[in-house]
Amino acid sequence: MAAPTAIKTDIDLKLAAELAQQLRVDSVRSSTSAGSGHPTSSMSAADLLAVLVSRHLRYDWDEPANPDNDHLIFSKGHASPLLYSVFKAVGVISDEELMTGYRRFGSRLEGHPTPVLPWVDVATGSLGQGLPDAVGVALAGKYVAESPFRVWVLCGDSETAEGSIWEAIDHASHYKLSNLIAIVDVNRLGQRGPTELSWDLETYTRRFSAFGAQVLSVDGHDVGAIDRAMTRAADVSGDQPSVILARTQKGRGFSEVEDKEGWHGQPLPPEMAERAIIELGGERHLIVRGPKPVAAARVPRTTADGAQVKLPVYEVGDKVATRKAYGDALAALGARRDVVAMDGEVSNSTFADEFAHRYPERFFEMYIAEQQLIAAAVGFSVCGYRPFASTFAAFLTRAYDFIRMASISQASICLSGSHAGVEIGADGPSQMALEDLAMLRAVQGSTVLYPSDATSAAALVAAMAGLDGISYLRTTRGAYPVLYRSGEFFPVGGAKVLRSSDADQVTLVGAGVTLHECLAAADQLAAVGISARVIDLYSVKPVDTATLTAAADATGGRFVLVEDHHPEGGLGSAVLEALADTGRVDLRVAHLAVREMPGSGTSQELLDAAGISAGHIAAAASGLAGA
Amino acid sequence: MAAPTAIKTDIDLKLAAELAQQLRVDSVRSSTSAGSGHPTSSMSAADLLAVLVSRHLRYDWDEPANPDNDHLIFSKGHASPLLYSVFKAVGVISDEELMTGYRRFGSRLEGHPTPVLPWVDVATGSLGQGLPDAVGVALAGKYVAESPFRVWVLCGDSETAEGSIWEAIDHASHYKLSNLIAIVDVNRLGQRGPTELSWDLETYTRRFSAFGAQVLSVDGHDVGAIDRAMTRAADVSGDQPSVILARTQKGRGFSEVEDKEGWHGQPLPPEMAERAIIELGGERHLIVRGPKPVAAARVPRTTADGAQVKLPVYEVGDKVATRKAYGDALAALGARRDVVAMDGEVSNSTFADEFAHRYPERFFEMYIAEQQLIAAAVGFSVCGYRPFASTFAAFLTRAYDFIRMASISQASICLSGSHAGVEIGADGPSQMALEDLAMLRAVQGSTVLYPSDATSAAALVAAMAGLDGISYLRTTRGAYPVLYRSGEFFPVGGAKVLRSSDADQVTLVGAGVTLHECLAAADQLAAVGISARVIDLYSVKPVDTATLTAAADATGGRFVLVEDHHPEGGLGSAVLEALADTGRVDLRVAHLAVREMPGSGTSQELLDAAGISAGHIAAAASGLAGA
Repeated sequence: MAAPTAIKTDIDLKLAAELAQQLRVDSVRSSTSAGSGHPTSSMSAADLLAVLVSRHLRYDWDEPANPDNDHLIFSKGHASPLLYSVFKAVGVISDEELMTGYRRFGSRLEGHPTPVLPWVDVATGSLGQGLPDAVGVALAGKYVAESPFRVWVLCGDSETAEGSIWEAIDHASHYKLSNLIAIVDVNRLGQRGPTELSWDLETYTRRFSAFGAQVLSVDGHDVGAIDRAMTRAADVSGDQPSVILARTQKGRGFSEVEDKEGWHGQPLPPEMAERAIIELGGERHLIVRGPKPVAAARVPRTTADGAQVKLPVYEVGDKVATRKAYGDALAALGARRDVVAMDGEVSNSTFADEFAHRYPERFFEMYIAEQQLIAAAVGFSVCGYRPFASTFAAFLTRAYDFIRMASISQASICLSGSHAGVEIGADGPSQMALEDLAMLRAVQGSTVLYPSDATSAAALVAAMAGLDGISYLRTTRGAYPVLYRSGEFFPVGGAKVLRSSDADQVTLVGAGVTLHECLAAADQLAAVGISARVIDLYSVKPVDTATLTAAADATGGRFVLVEDHHPEGGLGSAVLEALADTGRVDLRVAHLAVREMPGSGTSQELLDAAGISAGHIAAAASGLAGA
Repeated sequence: MAAPTAIKTDIDLKLAAELAQQLRVDSVRSSTSAGSGHPTSSMSAADLLAVLVSRHLRYDWDEPANPDNDHLIFSKGHASPLLYSVFKAVGVISDEELMTGYRRFGSRLEGHPTPVLPWVDVATGSLGQGLPDAVGVALAGKYVAESPFRVWVLCGDSETAEGSIWEAIDHASHYKLSNLIAIVDVNRLGQRGPTELSWDLETYTRRFSAFGAQVLSVDGHDVGAIDRAMTRAADVSGDQPSVILARTQKGRGFSEVEDKEGWHGQPLPPEMAERAIIELGGERHLIVRGPKPVAAARVPRTTADGAQVKLPVYEVGDKVATRKAYGDALAALGARRDVVAMDGEVSNSTFADEFAHRYPERFFEMYIAEQQLIAAAVGFSVCGYRPFASTFAAFLTRAYDFIRMASISQASICLSGSHAGVEIGADGPSQMALEDLAMLRAVQGSTVLYPSDATSAAALVAAMAGLDGISYLRTTRGAYPVLYRSGEFFPVGGAKVLRSSDADQVTLVGAGVTLHECLAAADQLAAVGISARVIDLYSVKPVDTATLTAAADATGGRFVLVEDHHPEGGLGSAVLEALADTGRVDLRVAHLAVREMPGSGTSQELLDAAGISAGHIAAAASGLAGA
């Protein structure tokens, strides 16, 4: 760290240009030292970042948690050498860390930025995600926190081919996010050659304008022009997001690579790096600070306050859909001012509309744009809110890359997917989630919940609000009997044993609709003298290994595992993996799942056809009990 | 079926308007009979479809397999009552089938269209997918089949919120797909209320124009205006795709629901349906036929012809990356004229560029737009080609909804995902596929392959070209020793036992990089007197249950399962599920997988940190062998 006296403030454009050269030199040095990275993609944007951090970004580098700080998101995450060089230039990491840490094992200076660094909001590196995430941050700032912060996003030109960029701009203009500024580094070269639009800034302008942005085109190496554009974009009094289109050269500043193909993702060999540093004017070690955040009257950023959350109460035996219980519980959670909700234009199906009606100021309609739906949730998480995002479970597949990245972003977001499985009936397979348990379980650190009744669903929604990471609630379309009394406790990682006796011969494991089928099967089995244990596996991840192990011991390892899901990676896998992880598995298993492509029909017809209804369960259990 | 004499041809606009009323009446009748469905979303587009099928769509309804037929894709798949009413109107389904089949169990008239019907190209119902699929069909028609067919797509207005719609238009204009005509039914009402842009046709026009389309705005209930627009759009001599923006009313023609909220996805109750039918002029049973396809000189649509495919040969012990073998084998497969390839702007990393260099006319750069990448593959599959689509495995998560729908579409597409797992090293977690095995295994009917060396990789690429459904090859970044001699057979569903003896005490199962770690571990174990069987599980789905069962029997059920993937749903699950499906599992298992969030580092550092390197495998095996 440089001594405080060395810190320069009130940076003029001449010094900003110096700073840009320093950022280039450090991008070269760090990537060459690591033997990997993207120096040329960093050099194109160095002037943009130099002007931004020294003259426009309002950020207290000593207090990254200051809620009024502007946000800086590198949507083109591969330009990490540039970002880390900025961190050196503002004095929060040392030159030594930059040179010995970048891309090394155990270092926080990862190949692409992640929030292991306190100045990084979200993980980037899967292109087209930083801008949608930023929309979420800007929504939080403008509508909930009411903070004057701005959100600055550095985008690559290649990533504008991602549809998610257009979902983001569309939503930014719909919600009049004048606090959002996207800076597009149009260096015309992608990984394997020219981009689709090259330097056609006119087409970019038409597109971004048509999607509702204020567009400012600049020579991305003219610090004066950049400064003027940023000054204009930073004025949040309008009602449009801003897009600064910067015409740049990849590898700018080093003639051997400048605007040349074949240098994407290539660190310069050491001798070349030496020549580059000389051409760029040599090493510099400026420490600069730009403007400070504006503290303003605003809604305090709350976490769970002492709000009384009064969960809905259901009568045992009443038929209530778990998706309805989701809506009821979410509306109840709204008493907590940190809870926000969003939905993908199906809130009257997911029942998120119950929250929307009660707390319209904290509900965000994301229309049919599931990528932006998840990204908005991530953005709210960045700002300390507790977002709940819902759509049909089948359509969460649209956002899998965003969910995966949300996990790397250390976001805590709560997802609800309705209309799971063949149970939905007539709409057919396009609307049936049959892969969602596999998809969500495979996310690092995730929680996967699948309630069978309204009481447990409501309790689990409340539990989700306190979980770290990605949590997922799978809900069912149809209404089924309430099984549990109000007040029953449903710990995450638990399970309920609904039927058991000392004489149990076989264990039936289900969740959601199949739990009801398991109960019916147990009745059928009892009628023929077979005693079946029934487990409600409402927590699919983490799973209740102790209850499963006890059942295995009690029923000679005989299990019927039943799920309204494809056979791979779902509830059955969860049970098998958990028992395997105990080191020892001695089982006789029938695994009933949806193995063929379903069509339309009634719920019962489709459960029967898939072989996951009570009759099939009873038959499988009889077979095992006799074995 | 109506008698041939009843068929009307040379339909004038007056009769087209009659036909539109018939389509409305039949949309009401069919959905009311089923008790579910989307009549109002069908009624808005009835005039559009009446004019299209009677006067513009060149289609031989008696020969749906005619390769010169125009294509008709309902991107707004929930308007299935309209589509099926069209099928009745052209005489390919009966009124009885429409009235008794729609949305019923076992019927081909599913809630959303699927290719169980011979006139349906692709399954729709997940919005925003029909248009990208159509881009693939149009690419095939224009650039490979050289057929004069046109591709007509009915889109909803709500689905323009999906980024994938903009990926599609962007690619359609980039590839000058004048044979593509999107008809947007702007009825201004979504599921739960007004759409984002309502009837703002000017904004729609600016957006579609900026993305390179010829835009024609019409009153969607004026058959003359529709006819003129379709005539202009059908002229394929230009170099732009066309978008017909049709201002329409949801529920058009029945005053009780016309342009009213609250009627999305609601069939009319029977008494209301009666009133609707009266207001619409009563039942009609016109049978109409529009123009026939134009037979034209064109490249024969080939399936696997007698082409000699000469797979690459590798020397045992040479270090070759499996991603390189993918490129080599794909280039070799290019000798088959039905093979096409596409990539998401990373072809120099996936090695798809080897095909691109040899067969540029059958390679399609899809830029960084993974949804469109998969949709293009689906479109080529529709036209009888064998598409191979590649990107980083991590980024296939971006297209999971498209992959899922491709399965429902009965598409046969071959996917290659490179850079699997922590093995990639310095780039960090955003670039590491750690969920892909779970994701792809959960797709109905999929095949999941994960080779460990170049010889098997090449053989499996060749095998993929003959598989039905979704097939997936997971490849590794680094170069590892070739294990198998050229000519070795790798059946899909097989496995290789690389080490075995009668004295085996434990079985090590790996694939890809972990197989090499298992081999090293076996050496370490041998040095301390423990004999380990080693299985190369190159076929993760289907999996070789016989080889696994034999190993279980031989080694007392002792298994070390090792995967460069999160622990859920991957290779470990595949083994456990397969053994469970035999009915009996008696195992002592150590499951080594990537359980914590990785960072950057070298391959070896990250494999070690995740606990999936040779030393960890040997330790786990020792523990089991002593147990």
